[in-house]
Amino acid sequence: MMDAKVRLYVEQPLGQGQAVALTADQAHYLFAVMRLAVGAVVALFNGRDGEWRAEVAEAGKRGGVLVCQAQTRPLLMPPDLWLLFAPIKKARTDFIVEKAVEMGARRILPVQTRHTNSERIRQDRLQAHAVEAAEQCGGTFVPEVAELAALDRLLAGWPADRRILWCDESLMGAAQLLSGGLAGEPRGPWAILIGPEGGFSDQEKARLRAMPQVLAVSLGPRILRADTAAVAALALWQASLGDWRP
Amino acid sequence: MMDAKVRLYVEQPLGQGQAVALTADQAHYLFAVMRLAVGAVVALFNGRDGEWRAEVAEAGKRGGVLVCQAQTRPLLMPPDLWLLFAPIKKARTDFIVEKAVEMGARRILPVQTRHTNSERIRQDRLQAHAVEAAEQCGGTFVPEVAELAALDRLLAGWPADRRILWCDESLMGAAQLLSGGLAGEPRGPWAILIGPEGGFSDQEKARLRAMPQVLAVSLGPRILRADTAAVAALALWQASLGDWRP
Repeated sequence: MMDAKVRLYVEQPLGQGQAVALTADQAHYLFAVMRLAVGAVVALFNGRDGEWRAEVAEAGKRGGVLVCQAQTRPLLMPPDLWLLFAPIKKARTDFIVEKAVEMGARRILPVQTRHTNSERIRQDRLQAHAVEAAEQCGGTFVPEVAELAALDRLLAGWPADRRILWCDESLMGAAQLLSGGLAGEPRGPWAILIGPEGGFSDQEKARLRAMPQVLAVSLGPRILRADTAAVAALALWQASLGDWRP
Repeated sequence: MMDAKVRLYVEQPLGQGQAVALTADQAHYLFAVMRLAVGAVVALFNGRDGEWRAEVAEAGKRGGVLVCQAQTRPLLMPPDLWLLFAPIKKARTDFIVEKAVEMGARRILPVQTRHTNSERIRQDRLQAHAVEAAEQCGGTFVPEVAELAALDRLLAGWPADRRILWCDESLMGAAQLLSGGLAGEPRGPWAILIGPEGGFSDQEKARLRAMPQVLAVSLGPRILRADTAAVAALALWQASLGDWRP
């Protein structure tokens, strides 16, 4: 049995014998770009039903049909972890989204802080980027990328039971060093909050400090870029509280 | 007293009253690109003497002189940690070098494995990239980027006292999950080894398994790109054994 060389995210339900009709874009990708033909095998996932091996049953210029043959991986649902970050330059924002998918965040929330550089994001583009990251990295789940929201407003309605791991360079010395991981912390819903390049404002810091859900941490003695800090914090959280545990 | 907005890496010794002559490239950057003039303040570091505030004493088209006024930061020497990785696409190799600098690796060693895609690297370009990463991220130390070396040969002469944290996707399940960090492991010299995109060959795996210095670990249940794995492993090592500890 051939191994699928192409992984494709689709919206439709997947299951034994299920036929999946392709959009024109998907047909173009599979048949014109990847040069697959009837009988070829593709790996499909939809973020809900795991990964399925599917065979090309019809291939056309503007569409086609795949038929699911067997589940090749179960759904790997990431832990209940959100990543909040202030958007930075386009390439690095894309990078943060890609890394959040690989590292297993369940939701990605771009936040606007006092010192955030971007006033807007292209949510659809970032969501497509998350899909692509999952396709390329063997993921079976695609985190939702939320619309840009003001940090103030998010914090005003913050759930009482969701802890926040607040990573801020300016906390160096003042906060707990994240040494030995987070082993003593409670499991359950969490969010990681990565600061903007200009740092948080005094008002934002005061607000965060006053929230009982917040754990302020410093990521070592060097200044990290936001994208580096995101991966580092995700790694420490996953190793201590997430699905990197045995 | 003005805060320096420009950070510059230089080769010369730095110390109280020390004059630093600029190369033509440095002069072009400071005076033509950054538009600094006599009296302006620059932050200098050389990887050995910490960071110094220096004033522009002479500014010319092809040179200039800075004079060190005061040390603004001591040298922050990273722990004795090497990062070994198999070069991948140019942008991601650059990225690994940048992240290794931010995360505090002391040496960066590109290695050629059986399944490494690149046959060669531009060591000088990667070293310049490491300098730039240190300039931008407030570092006072610049790790050496070694020439590309065959992994086989490196392992043949591997020091008995330097442990290797071997991160390999194919180890999933077979190796220790890196949960709760590396708290039980000995301190001292270490290296992190990140596999190539094609994975290690059976021969390489057998060799690594047979070395008493090697600790094989899996970085969670998702497949990580080499650049993600590098940052994640560096974070876990620094938090457990490195200078992220209090």
